[in-house]
Amino acid sequence: MKSSAILLVSCPDAKGEVASIADFVYRHGGNILHADEHADEESGLFLMRVEFDPKDFDIDLADKDLADFRRQFSPIAEKFRMTWRLALSSHRPRMIIFVSKYDHCLVDLLYRHQSGELACEIPLIISNHPDNQRVANFYKIPYAVVSITKDNKQQAERQVQSLIEEHKADFMVLARYMQIFSSDFVNRYPQRIINIHHGFLPAFIGAKPYHQAFERGVKLIGATSHYVTEVLDDGPIIEQDVVRVSHRDTVDDLIRKGRDLEKVVLSRAVRLHVENRILLYGNKTVVF
Amino acid sequence: MKSSAILLVSCPDAKGEVASIADFVYRHGGNILHADEHADEESGLFLMRVEFDPKDFDIDLADKDLADFRRQFSPIAEKFRMTWRLALSSHRPRMIIFVSKYDHCLVDLLYRHQSGELACEIPLIISNHPDNQRVANFYKIPYAVVSITKDNKQQAERQVQSLIEEHKADFMVLARYMQIFSSDFVNRYPQRIINIHHGFLPAFIGAKPYHQAFERGVKLIGATSHYVTEVLDDGPIIEQDVVRVSHRDTVDDLIRKGRDLEKVVLSRAVRLHVENRILLYGNKTVVF
Amino acid sequence: MKSSAILLVSCPDAKGEVASIADFVYRHGGNILHADEHADEESGLFLMRVEFDPKDFDIDLADKDLADFRRQFSPIAEKFRMTWRLALSSHRPRMIIFVSKYDHCLVDLLYRHQSGELACEIPLIISNHPDNQRVANFYKIPYAVVSITKDNKQQAERQVQSLIEEHKADFMVLARYMQIFSSDFVNRYPQRIINIHHGFLPAFIGAKPYHQAFERGVKLIGATSHYVTEVLDDGPIIEQDVVRVSHRDTVDDLIRKGRDLEKVVLSRAVRLHVENRILLYGNKTVVF
Amino acid sequence: MKSSAILLVSCPDAKGEVASIADFVYRHGGNILHADEHADEESGLFLMRVEFDPKDFDIDLADKDLADFRRQFSPIAEKFRMTWRLALSSHRPRMIIFVSKYDHCLVDLLYRHQSGELACEIPLIISNHPDNQRVANFYKIPYAVVSITKDNKQQAERQVQSLIEEHKADFMVLARYMQIFSSDFVNRYPQRIINIHHGFLPAFIGAKPYHQAFERGVKLIGATSHYVTEVLDDGPIIEQDVVRVSHRDTVDDLIRKGRDLEKVVLSRAVRLHVENRILLYGNKTVVF
Repeated sequence: MKSSAILLVSCPDAKGEVASIADFVYRHGGNILHADEHADEESGLFLMRVEFDPKDFDIDLADKDLADFRRQFSPIAEKFRMTWRLALSSHRPRMIIFVSKYDHCLVDLLYRHQSGELACEIPLIISNHPDNQRVANFYKIPYAVVSITKDNKQQAERQVQSLIEEHKADFMVLARYMQIFSSDFVNRYPQRIINIHHGFLPAFIGAKPYHQAFERGVKLIGATSHYVTEVLDDGPIIEQDVVRVSHRDTVDDLIRKGRDLEKVVLSRAVRLHVENRILLYGNKTVVF
Repeated sequence: MKSSAILLVSCPDAKGEVASIADFVYRHGGNILHADEHADEESGLFLMRVEFDPKDFDIDLADKDLADFRRQFSPIAEKFRMTWRLALSSHRPRMIIFVSKYDHCLVDLLYRHQSGELACEIPLIISNHPDNQRVANFYKIPYAVVSITKDNKQQAERQVQSLIEEHKADFMVLARYMQIFSSDFVNRYPQRIINIHHGFLPAFIGAKPYHQAFERGVKLIGATSHYVTEVLDDGPIIEQDVVRVSHRDTVDDLIRKGRDLEKVVLSRAVRLHVENRILLYGNKTVVF
Repeated sequence: MKSSAILLVSCPDAKGEVASIADFVYRHGGNILHADEHADEESGLFLMRVEFDPKDFDIDLADKDLADFRRQFSPIAEKFRMTWRLALSSHRPRMIIFVSKYDHCLVDLLYRHQSGELACEIPLIISNHPDNQRVANFYKIPYAVVSITKDNKQQAERQVQSLIEEHKADFMVLARYMQIFSSDFVNRYPQRIINIHHGFLPAFIGAKPYHQAFERGVKLIGATSHYVTEVLDDGPIIEQDVVRVSHRDTVDDLIRKGRDLEKVVLSRAVRLHVENRILLYGNKTVVF
Repeated sequence: MKSSAILLVSCPDAKGEVASIADFVYRHGGNILHADEHADEESGLFLMRVEFDPKDFDIDLADKDLADFRRQFSPIAEKFRMTWRLALSSHRPRMIIFVSKYDHCLVDLLYRHQSGELACEIPLIISNHPDNQRVANFYKIPYAVVSITKDNKQQAERQVQSLIEEHKADFMVLARYMQIFSSDFVNRYPQRIINIHHGFLPAFIGAKPYHQAFERGVKLIGATSHYVTEVLDDGPIIEQDVVRVSHRDTVDDLIRKGRDLEKVVLSRAVRLHVENRILLYGNKTVVF
C-alpha cells in the first residue's frame, strides 16, 4: 500500500470548499488519490475526506505537530470555519483491545492484524479475566488483567486510564467486553471507543440480546458496531449486519450464528476507523 | 401444481406422533409429498405439517365439513390432544386486501396474483380512499371505499365486518393500510390478518419508522410482515428482510428502498399463509 | 429534487485534475453537490463525476449544444485529454423499452416510472408480440409491434432503428426481450442498450440460465444487468444480485424467485443510467 | 447437545416410506426429534433424514457393525430398495485438514473446533509446506508435511493415503490446499473430500478466480464448498455465498473480502457434513 495523507474536514456547507481544498493540495504538489464528500441538508454540514499522495508535497508532514501544514492550511480552514484533521497512512494508530471471557472477536482481530488486514499497532490487551492470556501469548501481545467489581470500579477505571496513557493508545475496542464504563471515563475518549453489540440496534438494547431476539421470534438477527457514548448502546452506528434464523434455531444457534456476525461487523468497523474513513455529524456516522 | 392435502397439527410433544400420522395417511391410501415437524423444547409443543397426494385417499375430502375425515382421524387426535386443521390445495382461500393511498404493495400483490404466484381468490379490495380504484379496475377486482374517521370508527368496522362476511373472506391483508383496527375487531380474526410494517421490528414500532431509522443513523433498514394482534406491531412475525443504506440516502431514499422490501416481504408472507405453511406457538411462528 | 448539472469525465490520470474541475465549477458560480472519482491503476485512467447546483452558474446551459460551456471548458479538457459529457438533471432522457411475452420487468419499470422513481421519459414500448398492449394502455405508453423472424431480421432492425430515431430515444432497455440484435445494430448504440440476464454472469451464459442453474445444483441464483455489446452476455456489468435456493425449489420456483431479482436488478441499473452514474473503462463499469 | 441417532435413506419414491420408517423407529422405542424428506421428481428419488432419541430404543446401537439394527431394518430397506446409513451423534467423525500456505480457513476451522462448533475429531493436519506448524501446535493437532512435486505425485498420494488409514479419517477437508489429487485418489473417497473454491461456481473455474472476477468486473464475488470429484471444481455443491464488491476494490481487496466468505462457507459445509445433513442425488446435494 502506498503511503498517503488523509485530510478530514467538517464545516458549514458553502460554495468553493471542494475547489479550495483540491486547489490547496494541488498547489503544494499533492496528487489526490480519492476524494469523498457529503453535504447533510438537515444540519447544513459539509463533510469531506481527501486522500492524496504526499510524495512531492512541499509542506513538511514529518513534523508530529504538523505546524507547517497548520499554518499554510489555516486561511482556508478559517474562511470556511473548518474542523479538520490530517492523518498519515504511514502512522499506524495504536489500538488497545478490551475483552472478557468470550474470545471470538479477540481472536479474529488478532488474526486479521497479523495477516495485515488492520494497519494498526496493538500495544496491549486488557481483560477483567485471565482466561485469554494464552491467545495473547500466541500473538505476542502484552496482556493486562484489571479486575473490576462493583466496589473498585472507580479505581479500576483509573488503572485502565493509566494503561491507555502509558501505551499511548489512539483508540480502544471493546471486543465483547462485559463491563460498562462510567460516563466520566467514556467522555474522556469521544469517538475513540468502538463497541460491538450483539443485537440489531436500536432493537434489543442491553443485556442478552440473543435471548431477547429468540423470545420475540425474529427472522433475522443482527450485530452493531458503534462508538461508545454515555448512553448505553446509543452511540453513532458504524456498521451493522444480519443473518437469517428460523424456528429451528435455539438460543445456542443464535449465539453461534451471531459470533460470525460480530466478528465481521466489528472488524469492518475497526478497519474503517483505522483507515480514517469515519466522520461524525450529530449522533450519526458518514463512512467514506 | 398437483392437488394436495395439507394436515397441520399442534399438540404436546410425545412419542409416536410422526408414526401415527404417517401411518394414518398411508393406511388410507395417501402418498406423503412433504413432511415437516418441529418440537419446541421450551413450550413442550410438537408442530407438524404433512402434505400428501389424495388421489387414492379412501376418505372423502370433498365434503366441506370433512365429517368423514374428522371421524376417522379423531382417535389419533384425541390420543395426542391435537389441535389440527386439514386444508386442500384445490381450495383457494379468499383474501381481502386493505389499502390506503400508497399503492405499491397492492399493485405488487395484484400482479403476483394475476401471474399465478398466489393461489388465492381476491373477492374485494377495501380502502379508506378512492384513489386506487383505477388499479382495481385494471385487475378486475371489486373496490369498496369505507371511510374511517375518529367519529365513525365503530360503525366503519361494522361495515368492514359485513363486507368480510358477505365476501366469505378467509383472511385479510393490510397492504399499507393506515388505519388501526380496534381490539374487538382484531380479536375476531386471530391469525387471519396479515400486516406489513415498514420497519425492522421490534425496532421502530409505530408511526414513521423510516424517519426513526434515518434519525438513528442505522446502516440497514428492514420490513416485517406479521399477524395482527391487539398490541400494535407486536404480533407473531412471519417474515423480515433488510436492505443496506448509507449517509447518502435521504429519508426519501429510505422510503423508496423500503418499498421494494415491503413488497417482497409481504408477498412472501401472503404466499406462506396461502400455502398453509405457518403454525403459531405462543407469539411466534413456525414457517415450514 | 433540485435541478443539477452532472459533469462526467474520463482521462489519463494526472495531477491537478480534481482541482482544475472543482475550480472551474467554483469560478463560474456552481456549487458542488457531489463529487466522486476513481483512478484505475491498471489502465492509468482517471474517472470523475461532479454534480453541481447550476443556479448561479454563469455559463449558459440552456443551449442544447452547450457551445458556451464547451468553449469555456475546452482548455481544461484539452490539457488533460478528457473525454467528457455534461448532463442536466432537468433533461429527462428518453427510454424505449423492449419486451417479448414475459411482462414482469416491463410492469415493474412502468410502475416505478409512474411513481417517480425513474427520472426519464418512455416515448415507446417495442415488442415482437402483441401481448403486452393492455399494460401499455394502462400506463398510456404507445406500443409498437415489430415482428422478428429469421427471414426478416435485417428489415425488422431497420424498422426498430427508425422508431428509435423517430422517438428520439436516448437509450434502450431490453426488459426480457427474447431476440438477439445483430452486431451492426448493437454497435450503433454503444453504452445505450441495457439488458437483464437471468443468470449470475459469467455463469450460465445464453439460453435457459435457470435450467442450467437447476442442473448444476447451485445454492444461489442471480441476475445481471449489463450494457449490450457484440458478444452475447459479455458487456460491462452494471448491477448483479442473488437469492438463496435449495433442493426444495423446482425450476419453476427458480423462475419465480428470479423474477423478483430481475426486476430489482434491472430497475437499479436503469436508475443508475438515468442519473448519469455509470462510466465505462474497458469492459467494466464504475458506478458512482 | 442430546445424543441422537440419524438415519439417512435414499430410494425410489414410493408410497408408505415415511410411515414405514416412522413406525419402525416408534415400535422400537425411539422418539423422532427431526424428520426431513425430499422427493426429487426428475430422478424419482426419495431422500430422508430422521433424527431420533435412542434413549429407550430397544435395538443395540453400541455395536460398531450395527448388526442388530441391520437385521431388524432390512425388511423395510429391502422392500423399498433403500440405500441407508445410520449415524450416532455420539460418534465424532474424524477429519483430516489439508492446507498449503494460506492459513485463514485452517485457523478458522481449528478455532471453531475448539469452541465446540464442530462435533468432530481432528487427528491430523497434512500440508505440502511446513509454514503452519505453529498454528497446529497452538491447537495441539499433529501436523504432517508431505511434499508434492510433479515427479513424486504418485508416491506422495500413497503417503497421504497411508496417513488417512493410519489416523482412521472419516473425511478430508481441503482448506485452501493448492494441489490437485489424481482421479485414482479422488475416486477412493466419494463424498468424503470437501473443498472450498474461492469463486462462485460454475463461474471462475480453475486458477486465480479472484483475478478472473476482477477482470470480468462482477459486482459480487462468491465462494463455493463442494465435494471433490474427478472433474475439477465440478462436484456436488454443498454451500455458496457472495459478497458485494465495486470498482473501488482492487484484486487484493477481493482476496481479503473473499477470505471471510471462504471461512464461513467452508465451515458451514463441514458442520453440515459432520451433522449428517447432506445427501447426494446425481451431482447435487440435498441439505436437510
